[in-house]
Amino acid sequence: MSKIINDPVHGFLSFPEKEVLTIVNHPWFQRLRNIMQMGVAHFVYPGAVHTRFLHSLGACHLMGKALEELQEKGFGITTQDSTDARLAILLHDIGHGPFSHALEHSLLEGIGHEQVSSVIIDRINQQHNGMLDGAMKIFGSQHPKRFLHQLVSSQLDVDRLDYLSRDSFYSGVSEGVIGYDRILKMLTIRNNELAVEEKGIYSVEKFIIARHIMYWQVYLHKTVLGAELLLVNILRRAKELSMRGVQLPATPALSYFLNNTISLEQLKQDPGVIDRFCRLDDSDIVTAIKTWMDAEDPVLARLCYMHRNRSLYKVVLDHEREDELYDQKLAVARREIGCTEEELHYFVFRGTTSNSTYNAVDSRIMIAMKDGSLRNIAEMKDSLVNEHIAHKVTKRYLCFWQPKS
Amino acid sequence: MSKIINDPVHGFLSFPEKEVLTIVNHPWFQRLRNIMQMGVAHFVYPGAVHTRFLHSLGACHLMGKALEELQEKGFGITTQDSTDARLAILLHDIGHGPFSHALEHSLLEGIGHEQVSSVIIDRINQQHNGMLDGAMKIFGSQHPKRFLHQLVSSQLDVDRLDYLSRDSFYSGVSEGVIGYDRILKMLTIRNNELAVEEKGIYSVEKFIIARHIMYWQVYLHKTVLGAELLLVNILRRAKELSMRGVQLPATPALSYFLNNTISLEQLKQDPGVIDRFCRLDDSDIVTAIKTWMDAEDPVLARLCYMHRNRSLYKVVLDHEREDELYDQKLAVARREIGCTEEELHYFVFRGTTSNSTYNAVDSRIMIAMKDGSLRNIAEMKDSLVNEHIAHKVTKRYLCFWQPKS
Amino acid sequence: MSKIINDPVHGFLSFPEKEVLTIVNHPWFQRLRNIMQMGVAHFVYPGAVHTRFLHSLGACHLMGKALEELQEKGFGITTQDSTDARLAILLHDIGHGPFSHALEHSLLEGIGHEQVSSVIIDRINQQHNGMLDGAMKIFGSQHPKRFLHQLVSSQLDVDRLDYLSRDSFYSGVSEGVIGYDRILKMLTIRNNELAVEEKGIYSVEKFIIARHIMYWQVYLHKTVLGAELLLVNILRRAKELSMRGVQLPATPALSYFLNNTISLEQLKQDPGVIDRFCRLDDSDIVTAIKTWMDAEDPVLARLCYMHRNRSLYKVVLDHEREDELYDQKLAVARREIGCTEEELHYFVFRGTTSNSTYNAVDSRIMIAMKDGSLRNIAEMKDSLVNEHIAHKVTKRYLCFWQPKS
Amino acid sequence: MSKIINDPVHGFLSFPEKEVLTIVNHPWFQRLRNIMQMGVAHFVYPGAVHTRFLHSLGACHLMGKALEELQEKGFGITTQDSTDARLAILLHDIGHGPFSHALEHSLLEGIGHEQVSSVIIDRINQQHNGMLDGAMKIFGSQHPKRFLHQLVSSQLDVDRLDYLSRDSFYSGVSEGVIGYDRILKMLTIRNNELAVEEKGIYSVEKFIIARHIMYWQVYLHKTVLGAELLLVNILRRAKELSMRGVQLPATPALSYFLNNTISLEQLKQDPGVIDRFCRLDDSDIVTAIKTWMDAEDPVLARLCYMHRNRSLYKVVLDHEREDELYDQKLAVARREIGCTEEELHYFVFRGTTSNSTYNAVDSRIMIAMKDGSLRNIAEMKDSLVNEHIAHKVTKRYLCFWQPKS
Repeated sequence: MSKIINDPVHGFLSFPEKEVLTIVNHPWFQRLRNIMQMGVAHFVYPGAVHTRFLHSLGACHLMGKALEELQEKGFGITTQDSTDARLAILLHDIGHGPFSHALEHSLLEGIGHEQVSSVIIDRINQQHNGMLDGAMKIFGSQHPKRFLHQLVSSQLDVDRLDYLSRDSFYSGVSEGVIGYDRILKMLTIRNNELAVEEKGIYSVEKFIIARHIMYWQVYLHKTVLGAELLLVNILRRAKELSMRGVQLPATPALSYFLNNTISLEQLKQDPGVIDRFCRLDDSDIVTAIKTWMDAEDPVLARLCYMHRNRSLYKVVLDHEREDELYDQKLAVARREIGCTEEELHYFVFRGTTSNSTYNAVDSRIMIAMKDGSLRNIAEMKDSLVNEHIAHKVTKRYLCFWQPKS
Repeated sequence: MSKIINDPVHGFLSFPEKEVLTIVNHPWFQRLRNIMQMGVAHFVYPGAVHTRFLHSLGACHLMGKALEELQEKGFGITTQDSTDARLAILLHDIGHGPFSHALEHSLLEGIGHEQVSSVIIDRINQQHNGMLDGAMKIFGSQHPKRFLHQLVSSQLDVDRLDYLSRDSFYSGVSEGVIGYDRILKMLTIRNNELAVEEKGIYSVEKFIIARHIMYWQVYLHKTVLGAELLLVNILRRAKELSMRGVQLPATPALSYFLNNTISLEQLKQDPGVIDRFCRLDDSDIVTAIKTWMDAEDPVLARLCYMHRNRSLYKVVLDHEREDELYDQKLAVARREIGCTEEELHYFVFRGTTSNSTYNAVDSRIMIAMKDGSLRNIAEMKDSLVNEHIAHKVTKRYLCFWQPKS
Repeated sequence: MSKIINDPVHGFLSFPEKEVLTIVNHPWFQRLRNIMQMGVAHFVYPGAVHTRFLHSLGACHLMGKALEELQEKGFGITTQDSTDARLAILLHDIGHGPFSHALEHSLLEGIGHEQVSSVIIDRINQQHNGMLDGAMKIFGSQHPKRFLHQLVSSQLDVDRLDYLSRDSFYSGVSEGVIGYDRILKMLTIRNNELAVEEKGIYSVEKFIIARHIMYWQVYLHKTVLGAELLLVNILRRAKELSMRGVQLPATPALSYFLNNTISLEQLKQDPGVIDRFCRLDDSDIVTAIKTWMDAEDPVLARLCYMHRNRSLYKVVLDHEREDELYDQKLAVARREIGCTEEELHYFVFRGTTSNSTYNAVDSRIMIAMKDGSLRNIAEMKDSLVNEHIAHKVTKRYLCFWQPKS
Repeated sequence: MSKIINDPVHGFLSFPEKEVLTIVNHPWFQRLRNIMQMGVAHFVYPGAVHTRFLHSLGACHLMGKALEELQEKGFGITTQDSTDARLAILLHDIGHGPFSHALEHSLLEGIGHEQVSSVIIDRINQQHNGMLDGAMKIFGSQHPKRFLHQLVSSQLDVDRLDYLSRDSFYSGVSEGVIGYDRILKMLTIRNNELAVEEKGIYSVEKFIIARHIMYWQVYLHKTVLGAELLLVNILRRAKELSMRGVQLPATPALSYFLNNTISLEQLKQDPGVIDRFCRLDDSDIVTAIKTWMDAEDPVLARLCYMHRNRSLYKVVLDHEREDELYDQKLAVARREIGCTEEELHYFVFRGTTSNSTYNAVDSRIMIAMKDGSLRNIAEMKDSLVNEHIAHKVTKRYLCFWQPKS
């Protein structure tokens, strides 16, 4: 029953535990095969088409490595601890929908993927007689070994270690390469909390900087941002039309979410909602967009045409005379596109995007000094992770349609 | 207008020619973004989800490198030659449908992807006033510089150089890694034909062996073969039902091909056929399979359920007592699955699969010896590529459904 | 006459120019085959045994790539410019002695390797009838194309691009991996000065940070520092003894430098000095240390024994109670080692070491903004290279002999 | 006491056992830091300057991985087994002298490095009270677990797995890259013998082919062969002169071996011989050659000058008219070089070199089939390792001095 998988990032991944294999084989987990990890980023980085399926397996692998290391250092990790923690990280992305960040703001309005994950995990746990009890405690920060939660979710969790390595590998952006194996070797426990040995400090600095750079160079890249906003607008428009009674061709699962507005309460109570949600993946959206290029609504048709032909919005960041430019682009759209004043905002609009390189307050990365003390990496002398870097950076964007020259 | 793309395999790819950019931006080329290079192989190698889009760009890049090398060696490559050859290789996969090898045997019965490519290229050439005239000559082996055709299509073409490197990279199977940069450095021309300098002989041997290993370890891997045959059967069944008048939910483009049997003549004459074909990609198939799990036909529903839940056929290769095993598996299926005797063959069947490591007859790899002679690599003393390896290897397979234990 | 070399870091290196080949084949350049790039760092990173020979070839390769890029962007690089710049960078390390940083402070007291390089280049230029005139102008910042000098020597020169990549590769410290190919793609010229296009800003940040981390994790690693100081002390002691008339066994070239104190004037005037200098490489030092383990002088014998058996000094950085610790270690050495009070300082001593991550004043890295302006990377909003990082970091060290436990 | 080392090939290497650390810290093992793994191959592949020190550590690491794998599969590997096997492989190269293959045929005439290793291991074992008893049993094939010996020395031992990976990595010859991690995962035991699981067959084929290619492309590369033969001739001439009473400058250890002819008996009996042998490393040879460029003997001086200035012999393989060419080159040398007829053979000579890709008789690689049978990989249907490849390939060489054009 044991299984080995070839991963171009980490080499061979082993899944000896039957509980872990049960999850991997679950159709709701297999669904992640059709959900790309980086959403629409492949418009800019065409190599970056890897899936949440392999990311989840990779994070599970790194969790195993981290716990092996801690076990060898004598921190008493039981087999049950290890299985629970591996199950927890394996399931951390289970609630992601297709092109997840886009969907959260359209199809499932106001419900985050973490909340969806929580409902799904609960359902699987019922199906399997409490097999996930331990994993759920780790998720909910109720496990007595607090560091297990930190390995699943903190500024130095195995989720980040995997996705930075994997996203760099697949996008070809070497700036995100991190020494995850070194960081794993340097993990330790102090007062039941995760920490990094002093000699691992440079690797942690490098990791934080790499994440910072990946955000601005890849995840929040102007064109990627424009592609993501286009997708959000397509789904918002489709939902708007559907709620008005327009019938749009779509798969049964997608139709359901276009025609119904789901509350968190419903999601939790009505098992049919989760069943339908778990039928959705990237392919439902891709086929819908292709079909909607022929939609009667000219706004939807145009947006879908733009997406399909990679004729994306232009994006300008932190422009000095944003108001002026905004008015100008609005005038162009008004002249060239036949649509109402309200609909114009599907073609010219603005907002903000932001990222924190290091959150020095809530969830800190602690360094276990040789002299026994414990220090926040951001407070160490000559640290690269100083307040200058650690603050949240916010950028304004102006996004607009541009006629072909 | 020049464009640079990040490729994790080759580094930065540049596309300075406006003709090349015109093709890259064509919606029929952009469509390749949604067609995976390795079809269903990701069931076994989950990292291998890369697309024909990036493969085509990568092959175009290698063509540029090869011609630069030949130009530096004084073989007089003109800018027009280079653009033509890059256009030719860029378009070599344009006729691939979703999960191409599967589709060829079901949706477009009896029409190979090369024939589709040819029709599409012709259409694009008309749209762009003969821009592809040179490329078409190269394809058709009518270009006076015969070696250009060999770089596009031979046993040492840039197509193979790219796909071996790329498939190894994404699948994580290091056995397929080749020294493509060294091979490119060693290319030369003799009598207007492509050849490899004598000191490049080991790299060529390595390349042929790597391809051999990739075939048996990856492309023809038992489980990959089983997944591919499952997909073929799903589409064959869907077509069978459609032709009988059963209405199956599907995207407009897929419906068209399910409900119509297309001849090569029609493909060439009726522009609507290509238009519809170029709307198809992997997502049409994936969504169809998800929806057809609820089909009324129990055969189709069961096959789709198997695919969706990765409960694939079992495959046995070259079994000594194949007839006996076949009868036995047929008996199991007959007992467990409620279907007609004829339909049973969707669940238990057999056939052959084969691969030639090196074709010593039609298209040989020639080594340009230092003494001026030209020799087929398969005929050199102590060559790894001897007749033992070069012959075509054929394996019988027996493929069957297995009840869950 | 053209030559191709296999480099594990950059792939194939080509040297088509006969001037470049003339230098590569010069015995004074071949000598660099026996001088390790990272000196004694292999005591900590045993993979890091690569030589200045390949580093120089690699830097020459990157210079070619950089100039090709600038040429393609229309900055009019002539073939002569390219050859001159490649010769200049090829020769930039020619004046390094064995374990160079150590030697500068002992054998050739007060003469830096740049001064030695300058004399050697002058000599080779005379031997080859002014072949290096252009290269010498570039070195001396007298070339009208000022950016050529910056490519040879500045905070973003190809020397650094090569050594960071190479040192990371060979040491296995992934923290130093940089995207040098991306940086090369982003180079541009503004007002005759080197600059980086705006979209390359993250790669430059990454490069500066990587260099910072390599300094503290590798080049100034405590144990590496201790090994380097041990080597300095061995050579200082050997020179001290030689000047007193003690005859130490050594190769003829090494004996010459032990028995004579050379002034810069002599180096320039007396051709015999350079001839002898160019006979020296790492092997002279390694054999001397092995032989001197049997020296009569107990100080020299002990130091050599320590080096040979990797029983290095201990090093403490920025210790809070350094004076106290110093006295204590001195007392231990006084008790355990039979030597004079003055000689004790070969076993217990202190000093400082420092590094600037980015020098914001003298030699700045300029970013060519899309709006046409030119900005110092350290002064850009939200730059990682802020004043916090850019300042010079100095650390105190205390270095001492420790009896085996 | 536990130690972690950074290896660019395998990542982090751990040495938790105190016995293993004792060996690593032994001066006779530290000596391997100054002996290059690939001897003079760096003349052609300048990146290939890695040492036997790191190769030995790497092989020890792979042994640990292999035994972990076998232990997980239930083959009952004890901690003592693991330590013994790791000690054995750590010491497998301890008897190598500088530029070992060259030395064996000159300084220590007729004594192989395995015999020297055996004497050294015996000495260390005495120093450490039988700590190496188990390792010695493994070496001598007397250990009851026969597969341990096979992991140390067979056609699929961890020595080969490490050196192929490492030599490829450092030389930049990708043809030698092997999937060693996959091979390790596939190891198993049958009848107390090492075997590979059936699904690992392609990796083993790849490994054998990679080794074949590395031999002909790197280890037996014409120029490498020429450089090696030059070194042999230098040392043979130096010994010849020394035996005649000529005093050549050299380090004490090298002088000893030049002035004395050592028998195997002496090596075993006289502890002083091993002590002196263990003082020798590459640096003794390099400094000697530099000094001997000024030797009075014109033959020695010329050979050393050739080596130092990389003006190597030319080598021709399997030449059709070898006798004719030989006479011709002899005539050139006779005319240009002033020396006796006998001495001419230092400048023009011939011989054979050979390599077996796979030895199908003595030491076979066995495949553990799923049906329980055990088969020699060379006898399997469609195996790449067929008799065509497996036979020993011998090539004749003609080696000669060539005047500069």
